[in-house]
Amino acid sequence: MNRRFVYADNAATTKLAPEAFSAMRPFLETSYGNPSSIHGLGREARIAVDAAREQVAVAIGAASPSEIIFTSSGTEADNLALTGVVRYLARYGKKHIVVSAVEHPAVLNCAKALELEGFEISYVPVDTGGRVDPLDVLFAIREDTALVSVMYANNETGVIQPVAEIGTVCREYGVLFHSDAVQAVGSIPVDVISNNIDLLSLSAHKFHGPKGAGALYVRDGVCLLPLLNGGKQESNRRAGTENTAAIVGLAAAIQIKRDKEKIRQLRDKLLKKLLEIPGSHINGEHENKLAGYINLSFDDVYSESLLLMMDLCGIAASSASACYSGTHTPSHVLLAMGLSVERANSAIRFTISDDNTEDDIDYIAAVMPEIVEKVRG
Amino acid sequence: MNRRFVYADNAATTKLAPEAFSAMRPFLETSYGNPSSIHGLGREARIAVDAAREQVAVAIGAASPSEIIFTSSGTEADNLALTGVVRYLARYGKKHIVVSAVEHPAVLNCAKALELEGFEISYVPVDTGGRVDPLDVLFAIREDTALVSVMYANNETGVIQPVAEIGTVCREYGVLFHSDAVQAVGSIPVDVISNNIDLLSLSAHKFHGPKGAGALYVRDGVCLLPLLNGGKQESNRRAGTENTAAIVGLAAAIQIKRDKEKIRQLRDKLLKKLLEIPGSHINGEHENKLAGYINLSFDDVYSESLLLMMDLCGIAASSASACYSGTHTPSHVLLAMGLSVERANSAIRFTISDDNTEDDIDYIAAVMPEIVEKVRG
Repeated sequence: MNRRFVYADNAATTKLAPEAFSAMRPFLETSYGNPSSIHGLGREARIAVDAAREQVAVAIGAASPSEIIFTSSGTEADNLALTGVVRYLARYGKKHIVVSAVEHPAVLNCAKALELEGFEISYVPVDTGGRVDPLDVLFAIREDTALVSVMYANNETGVIQPVAEIGTVCREYGVLFHSDAVQAVGSIPVDVISNNIDLLSLSAHKFHGPKGAGALYVRDGVCLLPLLNGGKQESNRRAGTENTAAIVGLAAAIQIKRDKEKIRQLRDKLLKKLLEIPGSHINGEHENKLAGYINLSFDDVYSESLLLMMDLCGIAASSASACYSGTHTPSHVLLAMGLSVERANSAIRFTISDDNTEDDIDYIAAVMPEIVEKVRG
Repeated sequence: MNRRFVYADNAATTKLAPEAFSAMRPFLETSYGNPSSIHGLGREARIAVDAAREQVAVAIGAASPSEIIFTSSGTEADNLALTGVVRYLARYGKKHIVVSAVEHPAVLNCAKALELEGFEISYVPVDTGGRVDPLDVLFAIREDTALVSVMYANNETGVIQPVAEIGTVCREYGVLFHSDAVQAVGSIPVDVISNNIDLLSLSAHKFHGPKGAGALYVRDGVCLLPLLNGGKQESNRRAGTENTAAIVGLAAAIQIKRDKEKIRQLRDKLLKKLLEIPGSHINGEHENKLAGYINLSFDDVYSESLLLMMDLCGIAASSASACYSGTHTPSHVLLAMGLSVERANSAIRFTISDDNTEDDIDYIAAVMPEIVEKVRG
């Protein structure tokens, strides 16, 4: 089979959609005003930012555009949610945070930094399928709990969490609920109101928007301290000149209807083929996954070696998450699911988008058995 | 005179240079990999980010590319410098910060937020020309001073501060020196080593780079706590997927040699004409200003009214800074210089770039007398 390039790492980042780039271009070329400037060129940018805010609010079912804070990334949105809320609520004696054991490092490492400031963290486990039990969240909540943070869907396995049930628990106990929806937005319908979500993070480059653009939904009435102090942008909650082009690109991308049926069909076809490779094991409960996700372990291989060989064959995929690359640390997500270190160290994540073709899938399916065999040998 | 559009608000933001946009385009179109991914597409992005880091280091005279942390804005760089350093040094009993009274809100409001955490702030005054006296910095330094933050050049008046002298004082007393060079970089040579600067902030969109890209120089050996926790990007000092396109755009823009002689000549011509308007007063010591800056007050007018009329005539300028627009607060910079509230409330800032033409200047010079008269009437 002829070598080709196949990008199957869409959970790490996605190709910017041409529609998003087109929407951005005026703000990279002619409409360069500072949205805070009162002259015409500034107002032009301000109008674009306001329109984008409204589009994002609509996309996630927010009640009002004023509930959207634009940030520079999903990581910044997660950090703003956690530190912003708990530092604010500390004055009311709330010093406890509940997170799941499988959160993205942006949540986990932010929680660890807050622990050094005196906050206490509880980690809610997941089952072997990778799911949080909402009852465990309930058991973790204390009198002094400020915030529960459980992701919408996991970035390594694609496993979707029971956010609606967790949201109900949190609302009932009067605890704020943050959900990192960085991997979910663009893949599955995300709705903040029906799921009782108080804060929600998203990141444009995960759904074919530009890098450098994220957003945090903050339900009206929820107070937080800013992470970035300075000018009065974003209603005093995130200082710094608005990145108009990126914000407009985010809003354009969030409105694109991706072909989820195609993604699911390509993913299922590839998964079936890969599971035919001897000694392959699926990680995470298949029924509860985002459509594009495959996470597999292959007996007796190191994922790094496999990835290098795959790269030579033109296949771009990843082990755990891009954030861990090069560190040789076994995935905390797979370990939390009770998998062995060996199994975690041999995991490969393929993430498919609707930019992929049948030929892409056929190519991966054709070369992977040989690659696995070669690496084992 | 025929109405034309003249952008004279280059301190608020600048037009993205075509060279910078060209450099960015591959990373917005085809080379969309996550720099943390180990496959070819990721490595392509990583190489670009590394090259940009080297270019930025060279541009500001840093000893090593590892001293550059890319951020999403100048505001983030300022916040990272202040909070990162003082929260880290708090463990050594350092709890005091020295800032000048004319800092950008990104520094002043960050300092105020740190005050709520228990840090103590001293404000160093400026003279009527807008300059800090290095002796005042010396007098403000205490045993427990963690950091001195004085800007390279002011964003409202363009007045350049005596950073070399302040750097000498700080180094002698063993206190870290941060300089917000957001307005200076691209306008005057900025050199961190010869000025004994330990931390320096810059922002791409102020020198014809893209919005959404800033950088913090952190001298090798200086420790700080990250503001954004998560992945291991930027050597564990700033988590979040790198905004490759913006970073590349920043580096491209910082290398462009702008025509400073043209800027100065256009500015001087405009200034001469504007000072012919009766009741006009220059703000800030003229000899110590960045080339593109004019800050003038006109007796008996409100700057907001003047700006609205100017906007109708196609002239984009600003009052104090874009960050304050719409708030009707008199400029803290002009008040710190000892000017009256009336004088501060009637200030207009024109900031010229080499994109401006003689015709632009002639147009402003021709219509301003009439505008001022109309607003006074």
